[in-house]
Amino acid sequence: MANQILLLATFLAMTCSLVVAFEPAPLQDFCVADATSSVTRVNGLPCLDSKLATAEHFFFSGLHIPGNTSNPVGGKVTPVNVAQIPGLNTLGISLARIDYAPMGVIPPHTHPRATEILTVLKGKLNVGFVTSNPENKLISKVLKKGDVFVFPVGLVHYQQNLGSGTAISLSSLSSQNPGVNTIANVVFGSNPAISEDVLAKSFQVEQSVIRYLQAKF
Amino acid sequence: MANQILLLATFLAMTCSLVVAFEPAPLQDFCVADATSSVTRVNGLPCLDSKLATAEHFFFSGLHIPGNTSNPVGGKVTPVNVAQIPGLNTLGISLARIDYAPMGVIPPHTHPRATEILTVLKGKLNVGFVTSNPENKLISKVLKKGDVFVFPVGLVHYQQNLGSGTAISLSSLSSQNPGVNTIANVVFGSNPAISEDVLAKSFQVEQSVIRYLQAKF
Amino acid sequence: MANQILLLATFLAMTCSLVVAFEPAPLQDFCVADATSSVTRVNGLPCLDSKLATAEHFFFSGLHIPGNTSNPVGGKVTPVNVAQIPGLNTLGISLARIDYAPMGVIPPHTHPRATEILTVLKGKLNVGFVTSNPENKLISKVLKKGDVFVFPVGLVHYQQNLGSGTAISLSSLSSQNPGVNTIANVVFGSNPAISEDVLAKSFQVEQSVIRYLQAKF
Amino acid sequence: MANQILLLATFLAMTCSLVVAFEPAPLQDFCVADATSSVTRVNGLPCLDSKLATAEHFFFSGLHIPGNTSNPVGGKVTPVNVAQIPGLNTLGISLARIDYAPMGVIPPHTHPRATEILTVLKGKLNVGFVTSNPENKLISKVLKKGDVFVFPVGLVHYQQNLGSGTAISLSSLSSQNPGVNTIANVVFGSNPAISEDVLAKSFQVEQSVIRYLQAKF
Amino acid sequence: MANQILLLATFLAMTCSLVVAFEPAPLQDFCVADATSSVTRVNGLPCLDSKLATAEHFFFSGLHIPGNTSNPVGGKVTPVNVAQIPGLNTLGISLARIDYAPMGVIPPHTHPRATEILTVLKGKLNVGFVTSNPENKLISKVLKKGDVFVFPVGLVHYQQNLGSGTAISLSSLSSQNPGVNTIANVVFGSNPAISEDVLAKSFQVEQSVIRYLQAKF
Amino acid sequence: MANQILLLATFLAMTCSLVVAFEPAPLQDFCVADATSSVTRVNGLPCLDSKLATAEHFFFSGLHIPGNTSNPVGGKVTPVNVAQIPGLNTLGISLARIDYAPMGVIPPHTHPRATEILTVLKGKLNVGFVTSNPENKLISKVLKKGDVFVFPVGLVHYQQNLGSGTAISLSSLSSQNPGVNTIANVVFGSNPAISEDVLAKSFQVEQSVIRYLQAKF
Repeated sequence: MANQILLLATFLAMTCSLVVAFEPAPLQDFCVADATSSVTRVNGLPCLDSKLATAEHFFFSGLHIPGNTSNPVGGKVTPVNVAQIPGLNTLGISLARIDYAPMGVIPPHTHPRATEILTVLKGKLNVGFVTSNPENKLISKVLKKGDVFVFPVGLVHYQQNLGSGTAISLSSLSSQNPGVNTIANVVFGSNPAISEDVLAKSFQVEQSVIRYLQAKF
Repeated sequence: MANQILLLATFLAMTCSLVVAFEPAPLQDFCVADATSSVTRVNGLPCLDSKLATAEHFFFSGLHIPGNTSNPVGGKVTPVNVAQIPGLNTLGISLARIDYAPMGVIPPHTHPRATEILTVLKGKLNVGFVTSNPENKLISKVLKKGDVFVFPVGLVHYQQNLGSGTAISLSSLSSQNPGVNTIANVVFGSNPAISEDVLAKSFQVEQSVIRYLQAKF
Repeated sequence: MANQILLLATFLAMTCSLVVAFEPAPLQDFCVADATSSVTRVNGLPCLDSKLATAEHFFFSGLHIPGNTSNPVGGKVTPVNVAQIPGLNTLGISLARIDYAPMGVIPPHTHPRATEILTVLKGKLNVGFVTSNPENKLISKVLKKGDVFVFPVGLVHYQQNLGSGTAISLSSLSSQNPGVNTIANVVFGSNPAISEDVLAKSFQVEQSVIRYLQAKF
Repeated sequence: MANQILLLATFLAMTCSLVVAFEPAPLQDFCVADATSSVTRVNGLPCLDSKLATAEHFFFSGLHIPGNTSNPVGGKVTPVNVAQIPGLNTLGISLARIDYAPMGVIPPHTHPRATEILTVLKGKLNVGFVTSNPENKLISKVLKKGDVFVFPVGLVHYQQNLGSGTAISLSSLSSQNPGVNTIANVVFGSNPAISEDVLAKSFQVEQSVIRYLQAKF
Repeated sequence: MANQILLLATFLAMTCSLVVAFEPAPLQDFCVADATSSVTRVNGLPCLDSKLATAEHFFFSGLHIPGNTSNPVGGKVTPVNVAQIPGLNTLGISLARIDYAPMGVIPPHTHPRATEILTVLKGKLNVGFVTSNPENKLISKVLKKGDVFVFPVGLVHYQQNLGSGTAISLSSLSSQNPGVNTIANVVFGSNPAISEDVLAKSFQVEQSVIRYLQAKF
Repeated sequence: MANQILLLATFLAMTCSLVVAFEPAPLQDFCVADATSSVTRVNGLPCLDSKLATAEHFFFSGLHIPGNTSNPVGGKVTPVNVAQIPGLNTLGISLARIDYAPMGVIPPHTHPRATEILTVLKGKLNVGFVTSNPENKLISKVLKKGDVFVFPVGLVHYQQNLGSGTAISLSSLSSQNPGVNTIANVVFGSNPAISEDVLAKSFQVEQSVIRYLQAKF
């Protein structure tokens, strides 16, 4: 089951394997990402010769296809960022389709480099984000079809399908590479693990509880 | 009819009456736009006291409702930007739903402050953008349901419904206030009008042709 | 004649073949553009070894030489941007000299990445810019020698020589690569052409009028 | 005990009650934060009349005084950001002194708007950060006096005193208002609480375990 | 004579009493600076109601008028920045005309927030800038009419009229408020003075030499 | 002695051989600087393959070791920026330890790309900065252990040990490559020298005084 969570995290991450927010403005019409392995690595991605750019570089197909939600959390992310559309490089925006099994969730996570704006295409979702210290105020709402909600950059947020059927949402993120830190995986499933001492003191529980939580990831 | 175009332009503009791209990063968790008339005007919008922020400030309802495309161009934009969701202030992203009558178009326009990423929810669209001088290369594609396409910031682009039924797309823009310059309206429908001399020479036609075009807007 | 417009557009574009505005700040004293073909392409331009930088890299000569205005619009742009001065790379500024034949114009255009500030060195110019939707307000003024005017980033603007003699202006742009979208060329002269259907509906005229306009470019 | 954690979170938060990273550049010599309640709220903070600025606005005293680590986690943060030094407004940097009791920790947290660079002034610390999905790689190191370590912006990180005596570190943050999301408090101690359903599914445990964890905060 | 230097410095400063470079992008078409004293002070300047904006807000007249160079250094700056053209607010660019008496100089100075690009309109100038530590390389050139030279942001630079007649240059700066630190005035003419001890050690001379230099400013 | 000053300037510069402030945000978790000579030079530094990143790339050791202040000014800077910690690349922050002999100074200088926040670890310092033209106001203060002071980006500032023993301070700078222009070295010690004519007129003294000052560097 931990593997499945890992898979989900991988999906979340693949969707967003890069990350940006309020990134540097483009300095030419566009800078289609160059996937050639021999080019120099830079902040963001290097550019293809603009003369070689075609419509295919700005295109993605298949966002109407449901994702497979057969995993422990019952949520599946289909990313459309610079990894899928090389023409998004330097342009500061991306998408993700999210499918939810009944009662499925997208666990608490942050995007270090993007605000997210989510639109419900189908179903009924419970969504929320928590403000930073010291208030840690939860701002949440139940959404139905046609509703839109905003998760400000860097704040912890989650989504949950409240309906008995599947649900679908479409998210936009203010980065071509928004990044994802899924809290459960980062804290209890890092490689190698964060020491039990640190986690036990941080969560104020016995180390055995920490080991129990770590075993899940 | 020109009035109807004006209406469309107004819709486009209301959706995007402000405009931003790669705007300054937020300097706090969020800065919900304060609509009080007495506050000082600033680059962007001033902030509400964060203690007063609620889920309603990050929420919009009704994006599943079709727009009315009964206008000369057969296209209708339903904007969801900082004017509709005050919580988007400083966060650099917004949305717009677009409805298309059969053969309806969204005329050539630019967003001075945003890249646009468009997803087709229904129907078949012809979309394209033109690169800057001197190439002025048209990069276009026919899209169907589930297809995604990118219009880089500042470049002229358009959309057209190629199907016999209505079409729907959902666009994300990399600004809470992306702005719209609809070419036909800006050039032939400004208030007051650009002089016929300038336009005749620019488009290399007789002034009577310019007057004919101006009469439409 | 269309070829001549194309030439003008080419001049405009060569002046501004790259484009930037509010670009990323320099991360060293300077980053002289490296024109070597084998280096990796990046957002903006890669840098020459700073030890090789000389005064010549920050220098341009000949801005006192009149441009040849023998073209259909009677305006000629002499650009001085990062293509002419490699030392401008990353520094966010450039220049252009503009010569005007009697009644010559610089047709309506946008700079996607720069604000322009224009100084009249000789003659009498009618200049203006149009605000975005929905107002599309024309803000214009007649300028004489020693007058200065500002065209905000991304807005459509134009210049026209009102005098019976030649005129000269010097423009500064807030980018080392400001970019130019000349409206007439982009809309009616793109390669390939935007479909007549789209343009006819957008400008609310018969397709024959569109074909007439396209034939000019 | 939860109250004490809350206190710690409050300290962390007071140090960083605002937050920024790569914020907009200053547009004048300085913009000392104006604490007057009647001024308009803006992204960041409004400015005092520059004529009233004195050395006191750029000054803080007492960073040599040990913080009180008598709290459940055994760590205490003394912040020096724009809330303590109004002259830091718009300048993009701040400090924090951190004291550690023997085996004390600063629990896993993120700064949404700042990279942190930490210097050990006394003692021996175990520090680390975790990369984003899907790798979730822990990059950690044991530090002694005079050692320096970097926590990149937005990533989860922690510190732990490994020695038998007290320890001290001095951190710099790339924002005048870096912000803090302490994971344990945000996820298990938000107000109101995130639903047990969501957390149970996210951490793959029984709801009773979630209630146990929530009871600590 | 020191008063005259002060006057020159004042002119330099008035031209550039604010300062910016790579400032935040505009978040609307424009933000004409509001000079009303009661508005809240912000990073940059607050905005006038955009409905009140007219062509006059984007306009300056008189840049063809020679400045009075009767001062100790024989150089006079006529600034055209946001203090003269309120419409430049948020747009990141400004101008300055500089007049030079025979052998007149603009003393070594920095613009903390702008790159400068200078065009010689008349005469023959010796110009140069010095790179940062440790090279401190002087990059200089003799310019004649029609020549252009670049001074990268933040570096010390100067200009000198080498001809027997007057000279004129027009500079563009990459900020609406570039700022000026004239070295001689800042170091030897600050108010109050920097202590003689500090300056004597810094310049490796007797305190009497420092007093002699300070007496000039 | 000039050589020793040069050495100091070299130390200052090595600490800060690159320079940045409010630099572009990172577009991935981190971009460890790649020191391989064959990679393309870019604004900032290219990145190492992120899979090769280890804790050593984010680490520096030895900041507790006193610097050698046996030089003419009696001040020594130990830099910790992207040249020492490659993991700081793109992250916008750095450190420097400064040691002061009795009465030692850090001469007036600017950081073109960083604000500095200084903490006194030992001793008693006189510090100050000067505002830009035309005020040139000195804002200074005597600091003791535990005191913190801010030097805003781009402004001339200095430090002086007022005590009879050695002093130590730790500075943070808002750039991974802040840069240093030491005024005395830049103005009187550039290579080649700025012409005596320019300097004599700028400082309003005889050329013999200029030659005397130049001989020190």
